[in-house]
Amino acid sequence: MRAGRVRIQDIAAEAGVSVTTVSYILNKTPGQTFASETIQRVHDAVTALGYVPNMAARSLVNNRSRLIGVVIPQTELHKEFMFSNPFYGDFLSSVEYTARQNGYHILISGTNADQTYIEVARTRSLDGIIILGMYLEEHYAEIKRAEIPVVLVDCYSENKDFTAVQIDDRQGGYMAAKYLLDKGHRRIAHVTGLLKSRGVNQQRMVGWRMALEDAGIAYDEALLYDGEVSYEHGVKAGEKIAGSFRESGVTAVFVSADIMALGLYKGLKNGGALVPSDISVISFDDTWLAGICDPELTAVRQDVALKGKTAVEAVLGVIDGKLSDKREITLPISIVERGSVCGR
Amino acid sequence: MRAGRVRIQDIAAEAGVSVTTVSYILNKTPGQTFASETIQRVHDAVTALGYVPNMAARSLVNNRSRLIGVVIPQTELHKEFMFSNPFYGDFLSSVEYTARQNGYHILISGTNADQTYIEVARTRSLDGIIILGMYLEEHYAEIKRAEIPVVLVDCYSENKDFTAVQIDDRQGGYMAAKYLLDKGHRRIAHVTGLLKSRGVNQQRMVGWRMALEDAGIAYDEALLYDGEVSYEHGVKAGEKIAGSFRESGVTAVFVSADIMALGLYKGLKNGGALVPSDISVISFDDTWLAGICDPELTAVRQDVALKGKTAVEAVLGVIDGKLSDKREITLPISIVERGSVCGR
Repeated sequence: MRAGRVRIQDIAAEAGVSVTTVSYILNKTPGQTFASETIQRVHDAVTALGYVPNMAARSLVNNRSRLIGVVIPQTELHKEFMFSNPFYGDFLSSVEYTARQNGYHILISGTNADQTYIEVARTRSLDGIIILGMYLEEHYAEIKRAEIPVVLVDCYSENKDFTAVQIDDRQGGYMAAKYLLDKGHRRIAHVTGLLKSRGVNQQRMVGWRMALEDAGIAYDEALLYDGEVSYEHGVKAGEKIAGSFRESGVTAVFVSADIMALGLYKGLKNGGALVPSDISVISFDDTWLAGICDPELTAVRQDVALKGKTAVEAVLGVIDGKLSDKREITLPISIVERGSVCGR
Repeated sequence: MRAGRVRIQDIAAEAGVSVTTVSYILNKTPGQTFASETIQRVHDAVTALGYVPNMAARSLVNNRSRLIGVVIPQTELHKEFMFSNPFYGDFLSSVEYTARQNGYHILISGTNADQTYIEVARTRSLDGIIILGMYLEEHYAEIKRAEIPVVLVDCYSENKDFTAVQIDDRQGGYMAAKYLLDKGHRRIAHVTGLLKSRGVNQQRMVGWRMALEDAGIAYDEALLYDGEVSYEHGVKAGEKIAGSFRESGVTAVFVSADIMALGLYKGLKNGGALVPSDISVISFDDTWLAGICDPELTAVRQDVALKGKTAVEAVLGVIDGKLSDKREITLPISIVERGSVCGR
């Protein structure tokens, strides 16, 4: 179906030089020098014939595909991306834009960062990989053996072989709980996702717990609501909290993602608890969802677009040999005050 | 940085056959036959040496990259995907999953479907392209010249050179307005995105207008609120409608995307109008956002995941020469009744 493509042989014939010469000149092969007149003839032939260099061929010649793989966590069904959480869309959008500005394309996979993916990375000759989220520690060793530059995002792995891009999630959890404590709250529940060892949710939970303990409040497991990061889990937790807050004394909730905060609002409303007069709420991420809640959400803000940009720049830096492959980059966070928290 | 890769030459040496023979056998080149013993020796060598075929090399041999390009519309800033609208995330997620199940990867670009993208498609040897949304008619002719299988999604182009996957958006707009008319509403406003010629929003608008005219209601331009498909545009339109509904007599709104419906709710509330007792609302798409509105949204439902799956299967069918490249596939729509519409 494809039309006849202009080949490198055609360029060589048109310019009156060898195929090897054309290849050296077009690929700017180090150590190969040519008369400027020869270089000009080759470029003239390229222009005259409308030659489009084939990335597959170029990849074989200089071992560069200009492709970056991006591994995104899937839903529990292992079918699709977790796109109902806008964090992922915002991240991916920024990664794609930054890569494109640098002459790279991204290959997105909803697969696990496991052996299967390493095969993909090798067969596709990926120049680098950005891995979002936590995977099994054993997989990092396999990835290391593939010897492809890797940047881990939002992963507190013990493995220090790769550049890591993250925020200080523990500090973020601490800030959220401290903010509520400073407003006079003492019984503060926490609604979060699955507490995978070394994952972001576990870190945020530890921060919440540390802030309470620093304020002299003993940890109470009954105030922890962990489940899937989803709207539905937020609804269920909200209904439970609303159904018991008069007895439990809970006056505030720290929820670890905006998507769950939306569900939490719904569940609290279903159970007859008002935000913020009965229950104050502070969220995490500050995606666009925070602004559509009523009242709008007070939240720990991270710059998701900056996270995506930083991850791409980090992996490109390693590919180009300009940056170390073992850096740890921690991006800033802050608290955005809106209407979902009131003082006691 | 990359480790020594097992090359096809190593396989040839191990199996005691020529490189050409290995290539023919591994690529299953048509018209080339070998003794089953030879084929076995080559496969044994592949297993013994842990050979990973290089997709770049394979792409040169059989002209297949097993890459499908996906062009996604950008925000007005031409920087990022329009991911605040969950339609795009749901679509992309389904496209990635279906492609992966078929041994393909997707190359996502936020670029325009213009000359620059054709260069990308050619240099990347894309096997096919899925283009979402409306672009300039002149670009379709350029795409046609590139002779790469293309599937257009949500595009009512005059160009009939490509397979088109869509719903009947005009019918959807008609159904939405008819539903409100059947509930006794006569003054029905329409909140929508930019009315690009032949785009989905224009089709939905025409359907709304036709339903009104069929009911003997003259078109009133003052009831059309077109702008960017965004939460913010919904808020502005909602505030305007709430500020004038007692004079204008508007009792219902047809809004052409869930993301705008969320904004519309906020704007109506800001302006003191209640949903549905003052203003009934019917939306379009029925993404997960429809369920988080309060009251939950009645909406024209389309199956976005099916749309993504259908687009991939259509482009793979053309690539494999099993399907015509000029089909028109129209997916079903329906109305999902929830709590945002009441009778007059």
